[in-house]
Amino acid sequence: MAKLEETISKLFQEGANIGHIATVMPDGSPQVTPVWIDYDGAHILVNSADGRLKVRNIRRNPHVAISVVARDNPYSMASVRGRVVEITPDGANQHINKLSHRYMGQDYPAERLVGEQRLIIKIEPDRVYTMGAR
Amino acid sequence: MAKLEETISKLFQEGANIGHIATVMPDGSPQVTPVWIDYDGAHILVNSADGRLKVRNIRRNPHVAISVVARDNPYSMASVRGRVVEITPDGANQHINKLSHRYMGQDYPAERLVGEQRLIIKIEPDRVYTMGAR
Repeated sequence: MAKLEETISKLFQEGANIGHIATVMPDGSPQVTPVWIDYDGAHILVNSADGRLKVRNIRRNPHVAISVVARDNPYSMASVRGRVVEITPDGANQHINKLSHRYMGQDYPAERLVGEQRLIIKIEPDRVYTMGAR
Repeated sequence: MAKLEETISKLFQEGANIGHIATVMPDGSPQVTPVWIDYDGAHILVNSADGRLKVRNIRRNPHVAISVVARDNPYSMASVRGRVVEITPDGANQHINKLSHRYMGQDYPAERLVGEQRLIIKIEPDRVYTMGAR
């Protein structure tokens, strides 16, 4: 397990940098989508909803990769390969609301939480590649 | 093969939107990195250099995915799954220079071309998911 250096963890924790998470389809081909990202000091966190394609892929195959470029500096980036070690609904609604404030400056719309089960996806970093993070 | 609608192809052709391309490692796990992107009317184009991890992965397994978020509008995104149908050095130096002008407003540094073989990677879109592209 690779602990993220502070310069890299900041890319996941600060500002409104969009992450792009790659998962593996049932046929072995890759899939990638943009996500809000966070870091809890040990894991990269992604918040998704039950039933989404990436969640179904992760439940089958926990290997993922995630890359991020700083919104204000295209020369600052990180690319991480790792493994999802936990998918949990615990605290997921509070977490999406926290991310909504960071990314959108406002509450996550309560009506969007009706009929969906938010999930926190915890990624243990394995390999980390970075350029220009500071 | 899915031809990209104009609203989507613009995400790949205009502005300085960063794409994130996912490939598959030898062990079947995913890898994802940020790239400059383009579209030639039929294929999504990525410019890389021979020997890079993503190029080695693609030569082994042509299935890729690529996602993009508009730099000026986080609500406008596309996620594409597809297959690399060609990897060619033809025109790759001119192409990286064109991309450098689009993304950086200047020539690609000539010294960076010494000792590296640039390649154009042509991706045939298969499945396209989009939100908010216009």
